[in-house]
Amino acid sequence: MTSLMNRQYFLASRPVGVPDASNVPFRDVPVSDPAEGEVVLRNQYISLDPAIRGWMGDDPNYIEPIAIGDAVRSSVIGRVVKSASPAFAVGDVALSVGAWEAYTTAPAAMLNKLDESAGVPLSLFLGVLGPTGLTGYFGLLDVGRPQQGETVLVSAAAGAVGSVVGQIAKMQGCRVVGIAGAEDKCRWLREELGFDAAFNYKTCSNYVAAIRETCPDGVDVYFDNVGGAILDAALLCLNKYARIAVCGWISTYNESHAPGPDNLWQLVAESVTMQGFTVIDYMDRFPEGVAQLAEWVMAGKLQFREEMVDGLDNILPTFLRLFDGSNQGKLLIRIPE
Amino acid sequence: MTSLMNRQYFLASRPVGVPDASNVPFRDVPVSDPAEGEVVLRNQYISLDPAIRGWMGDDPNYIEPIAIGDAVRSSVIGRVVKSASPAFAVGDVALSVGAWEAYTTAPAAMLNKLDESAGVPLSLFLGVLGPTGLTGYFGLLDVGRPQQGETVLVSAAAGAVGSVVGQIAKMQGCRVVGIAGAEDKCRWLREELGFDAAFNYKTCSNYVAAIRETCPDGVDVYFDNVGGAILDAALLCLNKYARIAVCGWISTYNESHAPGPDNLWQLVAESVTMQGFTVIDYMDRFPEGVAQLAEWVMAGKLQFREEMVDGLDNILPTFLRLFDGSNQGKLLIRIPE
Repeated sequence: MTSLMNRQYFLASRPVGVPDASNVPFRDVPVSDPAEGEVVLRNQYISLDPAIRGWMGDDPNYIEPIAIGDAVRSSVIGRVVKSASPAFAVGDVALSVGAWEAYTTAPAAMLNKLDESAGVPLSLFLGVLGPTGLTGYFGLLDVGRPQQGETVLVSAAAGAVGSVVGQIAKMQGCRVVGIAGAEDKCRWLREELGFDAAFNYKTCSNYVAAIRETCPDGVDVYFDNVGGAILDAALLCLNKYARIAVCGWISTYNESHAPGPDNLWQLVAESVTMQGFTVIDYMDRFPEGVAQLAEWVMAGKLQFREEMVDGLDNILPTFLRLFDGSNQGKLLIRIPE
Repeated sequence: MTSLMNRQYFLASRPVGVPDASNVPFRDVPVSDPAEGEVVLRNQYISLDPAIRGWMGDDPNYIEPIAIGDAVRSSVIGRVVKSASPAFAVGDVALSVGAWEAYTTAPAAMLNKLDESAGVPLSLFLGVLGPTGLTGYFGLLDVGRPQQGETVLVSAAAGAVGSVVGQIAKMQGCRVVGIAGAEDKCRWLREELGFDAAFNYKTCSNYVAAIRETCPDGVDVYFDNVGGAILDAALLCLNKYARIAVCGWISTYNESHAPGPDNLWQLVAESVTMQGFTVIDYMDRFPEGVAQLAEWVMAGKLQFREEMVDGLDNILPTFLRLFDGSNQGKLLIRIPE
């Protein structure tokens, strides 16, 4: 029996600016047999998320940086090809924290078994029914706390998180305004997702004016996925007691130094709450979140886009599309069986 | 009958950097008779607070900037010398929003009558039983939300607000660490107010190391009176789910451009809540706050310092002492009767 070979994209050096192949080269290594309690997955989907760029650096963050020499951490969905755990049989499908690799070996206790029989496309468990959907769900409802009739502004609104946020905010009875980086994304937000307004930041010469025009009653909740100049503009448009849910700052992730917002004094001027969070904070409530998101998806109330690129060897250039905004919704690598 | 003359220090121009007499000159104007419903106070105490510097600028803030030509807004305590309101008799004493002036004319509805018969020194109603005490009380308990056993870090800890914050945090069963700008202030915090530790930022070469040393279990609540480099250092020392109560940023008030903190990403890294507030947010709960603060003061559980300087004509140089930290506790101008 020939041993399986695992192609892994690993962190050879911490990127300065945009990561390139010298920072994230690949290697082919044999797949070891699983240790007691472990399972080997042959990955089918690898999730590409902006947060991964943060883990490539060594600044203090919510989880450990990826160690130099380690494969690039990522959520994966795969099929069990070897099992040393009674909890998993060969052929089962599971979601795991894995890496940019063809095979992931992990303790069974760290895997979530997925039920193929329900007919839900597996990839959704990395998107609208997975980490990004849950980030939008808990971040909006628990951190943003929108009330009926309030205005919710969301950046990266056509992304995997932002599109969930905006649609849930509409269900809460809010006015919802999205900021995105392309005309067709803005059109999708308005015409298909029911956003009240959306504008393209790439063709906008004055963010403050654009926010004021689209949010005539001011902003009560700003769901921040981007940081930088858009955060600074949003700060000037907040209502008294507004909430800023800080989900991520994709505009800064490839910057070696990202200064804080100039207009942070608005926290005091308008008695604003700015709260950072990660989906990990809500781990014990994931079942609630997945059930609610699934119900909305089934009922056609929650739409989503996903974009799959085939082939592990496309992973780095595909990942970088998150940062120029050329992806459409949730971005995944698929490794055909 | 000769008419009363009112000396007023007014805003002639918006200061760039430290205000000087060209920005805040004085004028002598006759005191008009009060209109129907108004009262004229002869001021005895004028409160000097860092926030006043903010109102001299025209950046968006929680209350309107002081208009060019208007007297410099401030809280005052004075005795009624003319009344056109049935609610006030000549000789009554009241707290009011007034200005850097000898006489304040205000609608009776805007005044708080003070009861001299209780024997409480009137000046306390501008300090520990007034806006600064209430700022510490609501800011710590409602915004900081300290739990028993947590660590509370407070900057400008020997100031009128910070000293109240630290003592209340001790009553909540917290470890309390203060940052102040002089050795004798630190000694006062440790030896008389019961702070667990205090350090002098002016002789400290590494704020992060000093915070880590004095807060070995990390910081759960940072009560921020200063902003700037100390905020940036505190951000690196926060525990998961820490709260930052943003009261004010005195270190930045004389800067024309104060960039945001470099380490704001820690909000996400540690799921931190950063909340701005002003005491005005709690206006409907002032009676509760004053009653509790007064009880603690009477019981000797809440100590305070106040520093009074006699003479309205000393007001600008006295005000500036807030920014070099040479004042000891609550700073007031007294105008002897």
